[in-house]
Amino acid sequence: MDVLIEPIGKLVNEFSKLPGVGKKTAQRYAYKIIDMPEAEARAFAEAIVGVKKKVRYCSVCGNFTEKETCDLCLRREKKTICVVKEPKDVTAIEKLREFNGVYHVLHGVIDPMAGIGPNEIRVKELLARIGEGGVEEIIVATNPDVSGDATALYLARLIKPLGVKVTRLAHGIPVGSEIEYTDDVTLTRALVERNEL
Amino acid sequence: MDVLIEPIGKLVNEFSKLPGVGKKTAQRYAYKIIDMPEAEARAFAEAIVGVKKKVRYCSVCGNFTEKETCDLCLRREKKTICVVKEPKDVTAIEKLREFNGVYHVLHGVIDPMAGIGPNEIRVKELLARIGEGGVEEIIVATNPDVSGDATALYLARLIKPLGVKVTRLAHGIPVGSEIEYTDDVTLTRALVERNEL
Repeated sequence: MDVLIEPIGKLVNEFSKLPGVGKKTAQRYAYKIIDMPEAEARAFAEAIVGVKKKVRYCSVCGNFTEKETCDLCLRREKKTICVVKEPKDVTAIEKLREFNGVYHVLHGVIDPMAGIGPNEIRVKELLARIGEGGVEEIIVATNPDVSGDATALYLARLIKPLGVKVTRLAHGIPVGSEIEYTDDVTLTRALVERNEL
Repeated sequence: MDVLIEPIGKLVNEFSKLPGVGKKTAQRYAYKIIDMPEAEARAFAEAIVGVKKKVRYCSVCGNFTEKETCDLCLRREKKTICVVKEPKDVTAIEKLREFNGVYHVLHGVIDPMAGIGPNEIRVKELLARIGEGGVEEIIVATNPDVSGDATALYLARLIKPLGVKVTRLAHGIPVGSEIEYTDDVTLTRALVERNEL
């Protein structure tokens, strides 16, 4: 990239750090910044610094917040806790406007191959919340992959004996898709977890 | 996007201003920033402000530079001037390491529908450079579209009478592509501008 002058090369380099952004896309982004009025570029830079300065993890659920405890933990009823891997999963579920309970962000899933056991994720904190009483159901919303499944199974074995219901998001054929094009693993689970009409 | 807390929503909004970036991609970028060490995020923000502070247009060719006159204008021989629409076209041609002359960035092309005539782009500056003498060829490297073609034609009519050769980038079938899949306009030009073997 030495055909670019230093400040542009530097910015292209920064943009290349974003997920899925190659040199060419990074360059398009950099040109866009150069074309922006200075105040707008400054606002952009401030939003980046601002997010690092202001955003931290909720002391209860581990989701992003600007305060000590997040708005969801403060306002929602606590009978049902939805357990997710990452904060972005909270955003995905919140968008549905379908779930009224609170969340618990594990900040990872159990993955022995990567050396991540139950102690490396926020399992202890989840048990502490259950220990405070009033929790009736834990919905495990980890991804339907090997480590997501393993984590769900581990949590179920740990929490069921405490008298709390543990459920998991349903797997099956995505709505609007066709059986013909559904992958084998999904189709098998749809068959095994079939519902009575 | 009101499921996101304010600093994240703000950053997602900023990223959405980049070309081709929707809400979903902007959110992925924002999460990446949150995951960065603070120093790295700060460097990112500084690169954005830095590019606005340091980058300006070369007083001779109109390309991006950090100085009064760009390195290309200072070092290259000035017999051949390659005329382009935007600074990014300079980058595209420089990458080839094939062209040894200097550039002239028009910062636009003639587009009567958008009210852009020869006075709105850097045509006057190009004539002034030719007037200084020593220029033997003007390569017009505007895009092969209506306004790019119109600008090339306009420049040719203006500059040829001054005794300077005016050439244009060749049009034709892209190398490695197939005739079957070449669009009609390109194929027609490839036929009309055919070369003797």
